[in-house]
Amino acid sequence: MRNGFSFIFFGCALALQASLAHAETASRYSLSSPDKQIQLQIDLRPDGLFYQVDYAGRAVVNSSRLGLKIKGQQALGEHLALLKQHEREYNQNWQQPWGEQQTINEHYRELRLELIETTASQRRLTLVLRAFNDGIGLRYEIPAQQNLTQFVIEDELTEFALAENSHTWWLPAYRNWGPEYQYLKSALSSVDVAFTPITLEARHYALAIHEAALVNYASMTLRLMSDNTKTLKVDLVPWPNGDKVRTAAPMQSPWRTIQIAPKAIDLLNSYLTLNLNEAPAPESLTADNSYIKPGKYMGIWWEMHIGEKDWSPGPKQGATTARAKEYIDFAAQHDISGVLIEGWNKGWEGEWWKRAPTFIFDEPVVGLDLEEVTRYARDKGVAIIGHHETAAGVTYYEQQMDAAFDYYEKLGIHSVKMGYVGTRIDGDQWHHGQYMVNHFQRVVDSAAQHKVMVNAHETVTDTGLRRTYPNLMTRECVRGMEYNGGSPDTGNLPDHTTIIPFTRGLSGPTDFTPGIFNFDYKKHRPHNRVPSTLANQLALYVVIYSPLQMVADLPENYAGHPAFQFIDHVPTDWKQSRALQGEVGEYLVVARQDKRSPDWYLGAITNQDGRQLKVKLDFLDPKARYEAQIYRDGKDADWETNPESYEIKRMNVTAKTTLELDLKPGGGTAIRFKRH
Amino acid sequence: MRNGFSFIFFGCALALQASLAHAETASRYSLSSPDKQIQLQIDLRPDGLFYQVDYAGRAVVNSSRLGLKIKGQQALGEHLALLKQHEREYNQNWQQPWGEQQTINEHYRELRLELIETTASQRRLTLVLRAFNDGIGLRYEIPAQQNLTQFVIEDELTEFALAENSHTWWLPAYRNWGPEYQYLKSALSSVDVAFTPITLEARHYALAIHEAALVNYASMTLRLMSDNTKTLKVDLVPWPNGDKVRTAAPMQSPWRTIQIAPKAIDLLNSYLTLNLNEAPAPESLTADNSYIKPGKYMGIWWEMHIGEKDWSPGPKQGATTARAKEYIDFAAQHDISGVLIEGWNKGWEGEWWKRAPTFIFDEPVVGLDLEEVTRYARDKGVAIIGHHETAAGVTYYEQQMDAAFDYYEKLGIHSVKMGYVGTRIDGDQWHHGQYMVNHFQRVVDSAAQHKVMVNAHETVTDTGLRRTYPNLMTRECVRGMEYNGGSPDTGNLPDHTTIIPFTRGLSGPTDFTPGIFNFDYKKHRPHNRVPSTLANQLALYVVIYSPLQMVADLPENYAGHPAFQFIDHVPTDWKQSRALQGEVGEYLVVARQDKRSPDWYLGAITNQDGRQLKVKLDFLDPKARYEAQIYRDGKDADWETNPESYEIKRMNVTAKTTLELDLKPGGGTAIRFKRH
Repeated sequence: MRNGFSFIFFGCALALQASLAHAETASRYSLSSPDKQIQLQIDLRPDGLFYQVDYAGRAVVNSSRLGLKIKGQQALGEHLALLKQHEREYNQNWQQPWGEQQTINEHYRELRLELIETTASQRRLTLVLRAFNDGIGLRYEIPAQQNLTQFVIEDELTEFALAENSHTWWLPAYRNWGPEYQYLKSALSSVDVAFTPITLEARHYALAIHEAALVNYASMTLRLMSDNTKTLKVDLVPWPNGDKVRTAAPMQSPWRTIQIAPKAIDLLNSYLTLNLNEAPAPESLTADNSYIKPGKYMGIWWEMHIGEKDWSPGPKQGATTARAKEYIDFAAQHDISGVLIEGWNKGWEGEWWKRAPTFIFDEPVVGLDLEEVTRYARDKGVAIIGHHETAAGVTYYEQQMDAAFDYYEKLGIHSVKMGYVGTRIDGDQWHHGQYMVNHFQRVVDSAAQHKVMVNAHETVTDTGLRRTYPNLMTRECVRGMEYNGGSPDTGNLPDHTTIIPFTRGLSGPTDFTPGIFNFDYKKHRPHNRVPSTLANQLALYVVIYSPLQMVADLPENYAGHPAFQFIDHVPTDWKQSRALQGEVGEYLVVARQDKRSPDWYLGAITNQDGRQLKVKLDFLDPKARYEAQIYRDGKDADWETNPESYEIKRMNVTAKTTLELDLKPGGGTAIRFKRH
Repeated sequence: MRNGFSFIFFGCALALQASLAHAETASRYSLSSPDKQIQLQIDLRPDGLFYQVDYAGRAVVNSSRLGLKIKGQQALGEHLALLKQHEREYNQNWQQPWGEQQTINEHYRELRLELIETTASQRRLTLVLRAFNDGIGLRYEIPAQQNLTQFVIEDELTEFALAENSHTWWLPAYRNWGPEYQYLKSALSSVDVAFTPITLEARHYALAIHEAALVNYASMTLRLMSDNTKTLKVDLVPWPNGDKVRTAAPMQSPWRTIQIAPKAIDLLNSYLTLNLNEAPAPESLTADNSYIKPGKYMGIWWEMHIGEKDWSPGPKQGATTARAKEYIDFAAQHDISGVLIEGWNKGWEGEWWKRAPTFIFDEPVVGLDLEEVTRYARDKGVAIIGHHETAAGVTYYEQQMDAAFDYYEKLGIHSVKMGYVGTRIDGDQWHHGQYMVNHFQRVVDSAAQHKVMVNAHETVTDTGLRRTYPNLMTRECVRGMEYNGGSPDTGNLPDHTTIIPFTRGLSGPTDFTPGIFNFDYKKHRPHNRVPSTLANQLALYVVIYSPLQMVADLPENYAGHPAFQFIDHVPTDWKQSRALQGEVGEYLVVARQDKRSPDWYLGAITNQDGRQLKVKLDFLDPKARYEAQIYRDGKDADWETNPESYEIKRMNVTAKTTLELDLKPGGGTAIRFKRH
């Protein structure tokens, strides 16, 4: 809990001595969002604890079970009585140090129900509920108590008994190691078990179910209770022996969140997940955080994916001093702050992803003089980005972790890309279980101590912890650009990028790595394709939010290219963001205002279908005039036949202008609105 | 194989003595469709047998493995040499005794490759390939031979290495007992394991993979080889011990079929599956088949689903003499040839689907005088439709099966609805394994001997066997109308009916049971909805093909309703059918010509989105004039708020007319074109 100086108390704390007589009758507690559109009901019945959610007078979640199953004990959630009830309203703006939206309003009503069992064990459980105008959060707290000290959560009983069998976009959990799939669309009743966020679109509202503030707990997946139901039940990612969470009182669960909005597009303008995370610890705020800087980066990376280079040492080695300097030279001439060098260290020989890890985290590979490269970069005002690929060997990595960050700190490296390539962590742990959650927290903490920003791939899904840990910048956790270039040649479909902002993107920044300009890499990857046009690639810099945004193609593919000036201009830190229009899997238009100038940027993308869109520019300052620098698909552009066809057009616009965008198949439009 | 009198031989039989030297070099065989658009290549290499498919100059299936794994033996498909090669072309029209299309052209080129192992075991395998203009079929034959007599197929090695990662509509296999799901749409690379038909839509073509002539074999499911591949591999539904097929030489597998068309809509105009089934046995053709009659039927059925009546005996018992007579009276006044009475026999008490079956198949339940009912029906020119619900107890059922059909034959009942409700057949068998395939064949055979038409629910997926067994009329194998009324309230989404004709519908007739007129059954099912308008319900009689088409609502909901005249008029047996336009999950327009009149009928349906469609009537006889009797959504129709709003309009049209259809959300248009 944060300091309460800004709390507006409107409820009063009731200290009720629970009596059995009281407990065995049903009682109901209510909470509504500040705008009253969301109504939350809690029912305390002898057979359990239940909640339900209405939105705009319509049932959204029917009566749904809450509770925890403690290993070796009765379910915690039945035969409960109220000890104490506490309501409050909170309404404050807060500032993101960096982000897609500088000022965020955090406005909720909260209900705390401190409960005690009426049975002999008298275990205590607190349920905390918050209702925002854009959704709800609920969490369990287990206070310190005699009959519950160290314990194992065998199952979390939380259910989401959805009121409608609506269209659902989801990723299958447990099918392989993680969420690097293209999304499935089905009826809710055809879902099996899914990662969160899971996005549902009914006729009168859209929902996204996810979690916030995942700390020392297992990630949540959602399993359909049984066929032909509409009830999703929390299925925590287990330890190898089936334990879900190993913990001790006092503890609190992550928030279970339901974002609610009239349409799917509105979910993108919700900051519920961030609002349900804690502000940074005070000591973090007083520390020197000047190393934390959003920015664009390039890297020795795509050339491995398209088969021109290799991560391994040898004749095709990508990580060389000379090649790194080429990237640094290009970055220095452009607004690109960092250069990543994958394969920079020892241990990448051969099929490194198939064996126990052999990486040395403080010894550069032969052929790369990292000291010279960092010196060269520093002289040119470019930062080198470190890389800790663990090959999913967490124990092995942690033995070197602090020394590895030390090594980077000494070299002046303040940004690291993490990697956890492998089917299981340490051989038998899921990537999303408590083991990995706790490991990754140690990474973030150690990195902060060494003044390092973290960009993690193949890690736990984001739950908004960047609010608390501002060095936790971005992560992958998506089927990214690499699938378009890499082997096997099962690239993403053109609609993939029109789905992920509505789903994965709701969890937080996404290191999707856009920016491919050269669509002809057939020498080594004859059957692969980036399924978009060049203008679509530009638009992704606005559509997909990440504070560290890769400029993914090779410098020689950008050199002298007129369209590159959009990438040069586009910021990675924003004053405000607006998802303007879109439908999941169809198209999306997003506008964002630069944090350091009055300029706005707009990105519009479509799926495999070309389409015309009318966009009102009413987000612009009504008193100002702008030059719109428009990067759009050429008349004959088409992701398949002519992806590199684009044109640049300049025109004067105001907030009263309506632009007509003409997106070609797999196409897009990227616009810089430069204020006069 | 059928008699060869009509074969056009253009290849010549080559009797090659296989030699090791020949075998260990690669050899290639080719086959093209009559129009040359489809090219099939077979590669015989030391490491195996492979095929690939091109369509219109584009790879559709890359080199893909063929073969069988015999239990306790080496894979059969490697180290093979050619013994004999045989090519032919076949081009004949044939007539369906009933169906969606009276005359079907069967035109293919065939390649038979008789192969022998070059290893000591010298097992023989014949591969038969047929290329039609609308797709391909391939099957394995194992001729009688010394080293392979009785054997178990442990795995079928057939792969479909698809060339593109395209959008795929699929149903998960093995998740519960069968295919009663709403379809999932995903990238091919996100498929897990799917029932067939599986429908794929790439930019330049659409595909459906399925099988034809499934006899004494296991149903095929398709499993993605591993994550991020585009290769589906056959995964035969197993026996409880893991065996896939228990068989003996000589034997032949079902055909593995790939329908190929420019667009998904064109798949609906393909008869590949039927063309890969055998003509009826001569003795079947000379038998009296006059009992086989397509037609509409009503039944004591929907009132159970909406909770007004019950299958069980007692106060809510649906199956009573009086109620049956009400249905018969209504049917007799209309063009409805049959009346089904579910719960007609003994054994339906309580939760019959949860216990071992207790049905008695020749004793009516107390309260239903079946002899009186059949007499009453016969006097009125209506047929009673029998019902054999087995509760998935096949062994129990087969002990009574012949007697049960005898009983019906004596009563003059010539149509039976079969049911296999239960999670496993006989406790441990999948609904789609060889055990059930063989059982169901015995049902069809026994029914034919007793002059009974079969309509089966919860059975093996259709593979076109109705061509060979003309008493095998229709089946469910779909998430039908019952899900909209039944409990739990996870009804179908409005787009469901716009998906199933492109997927499930490709396998054969679908007993979806349309025709709901009363959308207010909230007394017992307050949360359920039929997600369509009334005009959409009418259109389903044309859009979804079934020779036995249910008129699913209660007679009192039809009585005096002006829109019922469309159901009265619409035929169930057609001279020809044309899928005119549509997109999977979006909309569909189908026209069919009555077999017994020059009239045409048209059905158009949409998903949750209203839309306007222009339909050219160029399928009509250009020399004729027609009255179009149009049943369309009312101006304010909407599946959710006003489903019963419709209007009837009459206008004169010719083949030159273009109609503009205005479909409301969840809506449709049904038209009878009555020739002047």
